[in-house]
Amino acid sequence: MKKLILLLFFAQNLFAQNVKRTDGAVRHEYIINNFKTESGATLPQAHIIYGTYGHLNAAHTNVVLLPSHYMANYHGYEWLIGPGKALDTTKLFLVATELFGNGRSSSPSNTPEPFHGPRFPVMTIRDNVQAVHQLLVEELKISHLRALIGFSMGAQQAFQWAVSYPTFADRIVATSGTAKTYGHGKVRLEGQIAALTADEAFQNGDYKTPPQKGLEAFSVVWAGWLFSQEWWRKELWRTNSPAGTTFEQVLNNYRTHFIPGADANNLILQMRTWENHDVGATPGFNCDAEKALRSIKVPFLYMPSETDLYFPLADARYEA
Amino acid sequence: MKKLILLLFFAQNLFAQNVKRTDGAVRHEYIINNFKTESGATLPQAHIIYGTYGHLNAAHTNVVLLPSHYMANYHGYEWLIGPGKALDTTKLFLVATELFGNGRSSSPSNTPEPFHGPRFPVMTIRDNVQAVHQLLVEELKISHLRALIGFSMGAQQAFQWAVSYPTFADRIVATSGTAKTYGHGKVRLEGQIAALTADEAFQNGDYKTPPQKGLEAFSVVWAGWLFSQEWWRKELWRTNSPAGTTFEQVLNNYRTHFIPGADANNLILQMRTWENHDVGATPGFNCDAEKALRSIKVPFLYMPSETDLYFPLADARYEA
Repeated sequence: MKKLILLLFFAQNLFAQNVKRTDGAVRHEYIINNFKTESGATLPQAHIIYGTYGHLNAAHTNVVLLPSHYMANYHGYEWLIGPGKALDTTKLFLVATELFGNGRSSSPSNTPEPFHGPRFPVMTIRDNVQAVHQLLVEELKISHLRALIGFSMGAQQAFQWAVSYPTFADRIVATSGTAKTYGHGKVRLEGQIAALTADEAFQNGDYKTPPQKGLEAFSVVWAGWLFSQEWWRKELWRTNSPAGTTFEQVLNNYRTHFIPGADANNLILQMRTWENHDVGATPGFNCDAEKALRSIKVPFLYMPSETDLYFPLADARYEA
Repeated sequence: MKKLILLLFFAQNLFAQNVKRTDGAVRHEYIINNFKTESGATLPQAHIIYGTYGHLNAAHTNVVLLPSHYMANYHGYEWLIGPGKALDTTKLFLVATELFGNGRSSSPSNTPEPFHGPRFPVMTIRDNVQAVHQLLVEELKISHLRALIGFSMGAQQAFQWAVSYPTFADRIVATSGTAKTYGHGKVRLEGQIAALTADEAFQNGDYKTPPQKGLEAFSVVWAGWLFSQEWWRKELWRTNSPAGTTFEQVLNNYRTHFIPGADANNLILQMRTWENHDVGATPGFNCDAEKALRSIKVPFLYMPSETDLYFPLADARYEA
């Protein structure tokens, strides 16, 4: 499970250059005009970038949805994808969607005024799920999923799908993510935001050049949450570092190359999306997450990680 | 144990105003001339502030040493101190010492040039232990302790005492602290330092006014490490907050009142002291912490906290 998390999280950042693309992803863009967000803003155009793998069968019954995690692009699940792999592209049609705010789907960095930069509306997980639902139904003519698999913020989307569209998928898998962001997650994410925005160069989001010190502080703060205390004590970073790599080099690599090229406002937008997530806020549940969770009818596989500091076992046990 | 940690950590910050001082602490200051640090610097004067409670008996056999935790003053252990309490001042003579860098003992903020601010030498736990050893032996004529009790950075000192002065105490208690700072602790503390110093106002430590945004970012980042995920999920902050307190108010209180009045260079100095701690670096142990731990002869009670994110159970099990 630990390995799963590491691989998923770093898939596109660290290994992308070395992964042979035998999966045949096709890039797509879907545009929704006048997209109304839950916060009340209306984006003139909401763009969703997504990748597809394999072929949709005639009956449209072989679809698996893979909603992406924090700042990921659609390549994030590719270690699971390919002929003969868990997500077999000779049998399944995979749709891997990218969250608003990742810099490719509509984001603070790529949206015209009046929604550029810090003026981009806060998106919720429900906004993302609603947009992808529309993409599936209207664009791809898919009204049912064989499965939905989500990691981290992808798991947040998986929970939301299970509550918002209870019969849309035959089964849902959520790994390392919760149905609601509890206080600790908010404090942790606010710490990361505070570190990023302590940099004068951030200029309330209207920076002319990237707030480099803030981005580095954000990265080091996040690095503390990325692996368990035991992982660091056992120096498990040695297992995939070149021989002779030092702790200082590893730390410095996180400091300067955590999410290469990421835009500060995009990073913050997705943290706010994460923070605000609560399936209980779905219409009809009166902000009662437990009630929303009890409403789930679809076979749901929930896999937390024993060593996860973001989404610890105790939180998952509480939700299960 | 959880309660112990919370009480210890917040004792002087949150509750100090409300605690009735029935313990009769006496404030002292001890000065060591030409104090040589492990890093090779020589401070013309090293000041140690400490408090004493109770009375030293004629045979000097009733002494308990209480070395302080991060940014604490000597009042930090007072919830344990008083007539009839665990540390009974009618029987024991308690010496509660303050770490270098807390703003009262010699610190970046109160030391003349050439050691003012960021030029103050990095102190180690061993520097602190050596200074307190000299204070006890030369100033107070105490050559033996009935007990030594340390929490967090106080526990780091407890481990160092056990290795450096194996027969000095009859027994040692270390709660919520380790004998060595492992990689995770370093990453976590470097994240806090990065957040603080991302503020342009920090000016490499030569600030004219406090780097307020950096101090707030440091505080929010730290707040994420202060309590467990479960503590936040169960909203246990409600148990000692006025009725009607909101999560946002709690978070904002950490943001602006975490360690009131603390100086940025002092905060960093003590984080570096914490980070660099390793009993294995004691002369004679060749940077082998396990060897140093195996050398401990004194009865040693080691109490980690099940929910501690700084010093988790697995690290403590490894050292035990």
